[in-house]
Amino acid sequence: MDEFNSIARLFQPLAAGAPEALGLLDDAAVLPARPGYDLVVTKDALVEGVHFLSGDPPDLIARKLLRVNLSDLAAKGAEPYGYLLATAWPAAWDEGRRTLFAAGLARDQQEFGLKLFGGDTVSTPGPLTLCVTMFGWTPEGAMVKRSGAQAQDVVLVSGVIGEGHLGLAAATGRLTADDAAQVRFAGRYRVPEPRLSLRACLRQFATAAADVSDGLLADAAHIGAASELGVHIDLDRIPLSADARLWLEGQDDPLAALTALASGGDDYEVVFTVPQGHVSDAALSAAASGVPVTVVGRMTAQAGCRPFYHGRPHTVARLGWSHD
Amino acid sequence: MDEFNSIARLFQPLAAGAPEALGLLDDAAVLPARPGYDLVVTKDALVEGVHFLSGDPPDLIARKLLRVNLSDLAAKGAEPYGYLLATAWPAAWDEGRRTLFAAGLARDQQEFGLKLFGGDTVSTPGPLTLCVTMFGWTPEGAMVKRSGAQAQDVVLVSGVIGEGHLGLAAATGRLTADDAAQVRFAGRYRVPEPRLSLRACLRQFATAAADVSDGLLADAAHIGAASELGVHIDLDRIPLSADARLWLEGQDDPLAALTALASGGDDYEVVFTVPQGHVSDAALSAAASGVPVTVVGRMTAQAGCRPFYHGRPHTVARLGWSHD
Repeated sequence: MDEFNSIARLFQPLAAGAPEALGLLDDAAVLPARPGYDLVVTKDALVEGVHFLSGDPPDLIARKLLRVNLSDLAAKGAEPYGYLLATAWPAAWDEGRRTLFAAGLARDQQEFGLKLFGGDTVSTPGPLTLCVTMFGWTPEGAMVKRSGAQAQDVVLVSGVIGEGHLGLAAATGRLTADDAAQVRFAGRYRVPEPRLSLRACLRQFATAAADVSDGLLADAAHIGAASELGVHIDLDRIPLSADARLWLEGQDDPLAALTALASGGDDYEVVFTVPQGHVSDAALSAAASGVPVTVVGRMTAQAGCRPFYHGRPHTVARLGWSHD
Repeated sequence: MDEFNSIARLFQPLAAGAPEALGLLDDAAVLPARPGYDLVVTKDALVEGVHFLSGDPPDLIARKLLRVNLSDLAAKGAEPYGYLLATAWPAAWDEGRRTLFAAGLARDQQEFGLKLFGGDTVSTPGPLTLCVTMFGWTPEGAMVKRSGAQAQDVVLVSGVIGEGHLGLAAATGRLTADDAAQVRFAGRYRVPEPRLSLRACLRQFATAAADVSDGLLADAAHIGAASELGVHIDLDRIPLSADARLWLEGQDDPLAALTALASGGDDYEVVFTVPQGHVSDAALSAAASGVPVTVVGRMTAQAGCRPFYHGRPHTVARLGWSHD
């Protein structure tokens, strides 16, 4: 099957109903101006064996690909619009696997109201390599940046932290936990949940935000660096799932284990800063949208990310995971 | 050197002066609406060993990466704006090679008035894999599509055809030609020339256009398919450089050789269609912008791409090169 027929069969249905895509018959997509709105664009690449496991089901790889990009939009307070997809297929990725991959895209397009606008399909002698450019909208000037935090702003995080770290361990058979917890952790790693429903809360209250892809400590540090401030994080306040708490209680060195959860990456929660006077309102707004948020620290005038445990400073070897 | 320091050193200078990029410190870039204009977006991926040679100089790989994407904008009549870059670096691509790569980006950013808006940097156990999302502008509704051709429209092509085919042969030591021609051909393959100066001509006169990346016959066929028409191409009218003509004269089977040039790909010229009554004006407009154009055929009501040679139909095994 040649490139054109493969694109027609796999991808044209994903672009149906999107005038931007021109039926995937053109060299380019065309996005009309939306006066009063900014276009938010983000681009994430995933490599087999680096960002997902070689044996992962093709449909789940596709869904993770969309979701890690949607997580960037979520942290910016943006509403999803559509995406471009580049796939570099190894020879082993036959039409059967590609069809499952496209089915995963279709499922999450439906879930998140997305359309495929275009892209590129090439072959590679290397591992499966995927790249998405995701587009979203915010009202003009309303994108939540990393750089807007103020000293004394309170640091909050959505959901629970450490699921990405435990999920990777579960997916690779390195975790000691009961079967149900293993399955749940691995599922969180393979299909993360972008926190798009935080949009109203972030737009109204956040001075800065980032998604937790490298690790809570690292991503909080990114907000600090972009805002020319430091961050104080209380490790004992980090929200954990019941399964994670149970795992933590079984560890010989709970502080080291907690630090691993806080620097493990792949959580796809949102870490954000809010002025002290707005914390209650922000938490109520988030809860109303179905997302719990937890205070985990504050911004400081002194640069650097400093984790604390039971009120005492704690030195960590590295703040997060880099995919570089 | 970790990902953040590497990005800061290599890429932040490429984003300097672009408010869209937010200093590359954020999860996303933000593009303000430009009322009255459409945003044209295209995404091309290049894989080492597939789209460029392993030994190619890093700065030339970078320039080809930008230029193949700019060529898509050129064919759409779009004005370049900026780009996102995803790089999957193999371990062998150390800071030295990456620095040369970034220097190539810087050079062509200057040449084409581009800025880097953002992207992603990851590692790969496979070959160097690069992906650009390129943004351009056209006045609202003015993008030149592949789908607008009408039956009896005349097919024109810019510049000369077959340089990509001969260039790849020269770059891989498979071409018999004199040294000067070898160097010129290989240079055309490694650093193609996007035909951005055709913009005024295309916007005013073209009913459809595509860039010649897969091969003249294949890309003319794409216009035919998108426009639900066929294409008649006169192989003997295809414009060739003096070096290509000399090469052709040395071939045992000139028709087979000419067909190879017309289906070889990587030319990055523009093939476009113009109503019969506007051909002279279109050619004058193109010449005034410094780009010669040549009539090579016409659109037909009967579907399919049919090459002719000295007025007689000629069957070709394949119309072009697919990177799939």
